Amino acid sequence: MVNPAPSLPPAERLRRQIAFITEVDKLKEIFRQTILTQSRRAENSAEHSWHFALMIIVLAEHSNHQPLDVLRILKMVLIHDLVEIDAGDTFAYDTKNMADQHEREARAADRIFGLLPPDQTAEFRALWDEFEARQTPESRFAAACDRFHPMLLNCLTDGHAWQKHGVTHDRVYARNAHVAEGSTAIWEYAVKMIDDAVAKGHLAPGPKP
Amino acid sequence: MVNPAPSLPPAERLRRQIAFITEVDKLKEIFRQTILTQSRRAENSAEHSWHFALMIIVLAEHSNHQPLDVLRILKMVLIHDLVEIDAGDTFAYDTKNMADQHEREARAADRIFGLLPPDQTAEFRALWDEFEARQTPESRFAAACDRFHPMLLNCLTDGHAWQKHGVTHDRVYARNAHVAEGSTAIWEYAVKMIDDAVAKGHLAPGPKP
Repeated sequence: MVNPAPSLPPAERLRRQIAFITEVDKLKEIFRQTILTQSRRAENSAEHSWHFALMIIVLAEHSNHQPLDVLRILKMVLIHDLVEIDAGDTFAYDTKNMADQHEREARAADRIFGLLPPDQTAEFRALWDEFEARQTPESRFAAACDRFHPMLLNCLTDGHAWQKHGVTHDRVYARNAHVAEGSTAIWEYAVKMIDDAVAKGHLAPGPKP
Repeated sequence: MVNPAPSLPPAERLRRQIAFITEVDKLKEIFRQTILTQSRRAENSAEHSWHFALMIIVLAEHSNHQPLDVLRILKMVLIHDLVEIDAGDTFAYDTKNMADQHEREARAADRIFGLLPPDQTAEFRALWDEFEARQTPESRFAAACDRFHPMLLNCLTDGHAWQKHGVTHDRVYARNAHVAEGSTAIWEYAVKMIDDAVAKGHLAPGPKP
């Protein structure tokens, strides 16, 4: 629940909130490297955010840390990709663009969360910072599901994004091993899934990690 | 938080949960009558669900009833359209297909929620029933945002879906007046938005409600 700032009248709060809701429609135009299981078109970041949030409520029992504040995780998840409206989606294996990713995204967070009333600007920025820092049980579990989601979609689409970008299985292990910090059970499932993708020829073997 | 059913081992629970997560990828292929503000392509129900969930966390303070269980609302919102995977999207002004809509959707709910472990099947079905019945403060506020979202997108795209289907302003009032049960403030905003759409020629006038 939000405590309305006394300095803004309710009508002005609502006007700003709807300006923010209007702006974030743009996330539906930001495309990722993963593709959908049915039409095999590229997934966008709004769809990913919904699927990711649904994973949280379905899989929360598998978090290493219990209990979790699931509401706070869902808030993080629903806003975690909004910075891509300005900064674009950075592919998980794109080391070149990852160098200045956080700086570009922090500028985007300032602008986009800044559309809201001040108390919500501060709340959403704190949630985004928590998600990025991955130091709390909630953000660690969120990060686990955020990484598991594209791995699952890749496995269901014959390794599409891995094949397209020449990603080998050692890089998949290295990039995603932190899933285990949030959920040992999900990481164990992912390891079997990755090994199965290698066995099927959907993910190229690399040097053992 | 979910209480794991003692009858299913954790690995089998996870297997079923991931089968469900895989199945719901199909919601990204269900298209609505509303279009996006930027590319003006049709919106799909996964994107709508994300945008709707984000509206809940931004606008919760405008609910007529306080306090709200925001986590329960978000769960409802994230699953509310999954039945469309089998039943398709029914346009809000399509009175013909609305006749058997609930029956078609209830069958879909049985199948799709039935993929989950039994305790989660029951939990998600209860959430979907609560959303459909619109009798609790949580489901009334959810319904308000669910109706406000396409009105907002229509207003931002020159009345696209209204124009395409010859919907007049009296029908928009009649179909959406229950927004006021969830949030008087959001309904007042919507009324101004609808009147503005009429003034701009984006929504055809009909007989006064």
